[in-house]
Amino acid sequence: MTHSSACPLCLADGGLLVHRTDRLRVIRVDDADFPAFYRVVWNAHVAELSDLTPDDRARLLDTVVAVETVLRTHLVPTKINLASLGNMVPHLHVHVIARFAWDSHFPEPVWGRRQREVIPDAVSRLAIEPAILDRQVRERLAGRP
Amino acid sequence: MTHSSACPLCLADGGLLVHRTDRLRVIRVDDADFPAFYRVVWNAHVAELSDLTPDDRARLLDTVVAVETVLRTHLVPTKINLASLGNMVPHLHVHVIARFAWDSHFPEPVWGRRQREVIPDAVSRLAIEPAILDRQVRERLAGRP
Repeated sequence: MTHSSACPLCLADGGLLVHRTDRLRVIRVDDADFPAFYRVVWNAHVAELSDLTPDDRARLLDTVVAVETVLRTHLVPTKINLASLGNMVPHLHVHVIARFAWDSHFPEPVWGRRQREVIPDAVSRLAIEPAILDRQVRERLAGRP
Repeated sequence: MTHSSACPLCLADGGLLVHRTDRLRVIRVDDADFPAFYRVVWNAHVAELSDLTPDDRARLLDTVVAVETVLRTHLVPTKINLASLGNMVPHLHVHVIARFAWDSHFPEPVWGRRQREVIPDAVSRLAIEPAILDRQVRERLAGRP
């Protein structure tokens, strides 16, 4: 498998590991503003979606949609945000973020300008705790290639 | 087809129309900072990727990858940025943006903080003109469902 010794996503999981196959993994990002923020990370060091074979792209998409579906089912977010950027870490990963009209940046992207302070904090507003959400993601993805 | 009379992506193409099928369209965004910025827009008014059938998702992904491939082939960008956000316009569309180390915001997302002024302007730095790039996108997508 392609690997880069200088890449943080080759050296470590990149967050709390929720699910892992030989091809990809799902991690949860530790972000107080966005407590339902997952990343689907391709395990091999490739930069772009078009570097994957069609089968591998379908596998990645399927995993992204599975995470999105869990977030929609359990949190009923205002919107799901998906992004594959990688300008700083050019190792293929897709952000899957539940966004809410009350969150710190809505309707701006999470990389945009903060719109408000959120009190009580974001995690306390989720319908279920992150650890339980992780379990739902893990169960939904169990057994997938 | 689902349609919302209040949605700008139901009322108009949303940019320069480059390619259109019964299901989706590709438009180019008029953005002086990012002259190689396309959007793949689903024609029906649905909000999330997981609202599509698996076949339709595959079709959307295939189109995104085709646009990405044209940008990589003809512009050799530093990175491709993909995103499906829709916080302001919750009508499914995927941004496909060629990013360059010299561009106004790199390595920030296009929604982040400007990093520099770019002189001469971005469009003059592209290896080929946007209109020729549009033609390449159109030719690559010709005949696809």
